Amino acid sequence: MAQRIEVRFEGLGGQGIVLASVVLAEALGVYQGLEAVQTSTYDPETRGASVRADVVSASEPVNYPGALRPDVIVAMSQKAADNSAQLARGGVLIVDPLFVERVPAVDGRVYRVPVTEVADRVGRRQTANMVMLGALARFVPLVSMASLEKAVAARAPRGTAELNLAALHAGYDAATSVAA
Amino acid sequence: MAQRIEVRFEGLGGQGIVLASVVLAEALGVYQGLEAVQTSTYDPETRGASVRADVVSASEPVNYPGALRPDVIVAMSQKAADNSAQLARGGVLIVDPLFVERVPAVDGRVYRVPVTEVADRVGRRQTANMVMLGALARFVPLVSMASLEKAVAARAPRGTAELNLAALHAGYDAATSVAA
Repeated sequence: MAQRIEVRFEGLGGQGIVLASVVLAEALGVYQGLEAVQTSTYDPETRGASVRADVVSASEPVNYPGALRPDVIVAMSQKAADNSAQLARGGVLIVDPLFVERVPAVDGRVYRVPVTEVADRVGRRQTANMVMLGALARFVPLVSMASLEKAVAARAPRGTAELNLAALHAGYDAATSVAA
Repeated sequence: MAQRIEVRFEGLGGQGIVLASVVLAEALGVYQGLEAVQTSTYDPETRGASVRADVVSASEPVNYPGALRPDVIVAMSQKAADNSAQLARGGVLIVDPLFVERVPAVDGRVYRVPVTEVADRVGRRQTANMVMLGALARFVPLVSMASLEKAVAARAPRGTAELNLAALHAGYDAATSVAA
């Protein structure tokens, strides 16, 4: 059977949403041998204040690259959480409680992961996107930590690989506490 | 009339193809007030050795996010140049002669810009993607240097903005010599 997964990251400018999608697509496409397409959309009305990026991955070539019914949504703003009605049935919604006060009713699992707080604890708020990816690996079995580690190491700006990997692992651990 | 442009970057892993597409999409979407969608595709058969990224921008919302008939192709590998038969009529094909020996016949303008050589001269080969963007701005009037400068400054890893901006300008200047 064709394995297909749609992941959406949505939030605010500066949270590293686009890079999160790039790293996830590389992890799946380059290191897990799946087809993967990454898309980011820029809406002139918000002038970068609101950012959305999708990754669609499958064991067969991906026809339409955007996420139509995301299996996973990572919502890093209230607006992003409000948009999560598109979540597929039985999907996973990850929200950062720092930005999301009201979680809408969805037909799936909701996890409140303190993404930004964890990034601050790791030492730099800009690593929030790595924390998101670690949490994702905890809740989405298709996404392997080993492939994420390789993609992060390949993508991180020089001198920041160690910090980014620490944030990735901190995200996985934080998600484990939330799930327990 | 609806303004629409499709730009494709294609080349090898490590050339910064994906980041080039992200910066261009932000320049158009965030700083020029256009709709913009950026897509990158990972093909497991090449395991990251071959990379393709598209930007589609328009004055109206973009329905299909991938480039079907690119108006501009930046080809940073022989394989990318070989794929350039998809170029739209009257389009622009930019090739780096370091990687592209044979340029196929296309129904458009071909510019040989020594992208990698210019990046080396600026001081770091990793800035090749900025050189590509500068050249693009020279040949594609829709893309403004002012918006690229803003997007580069926002996107560059800390401490590298100046170097990346220098590469952007060097790309514009190199393209000017080629065009003359």
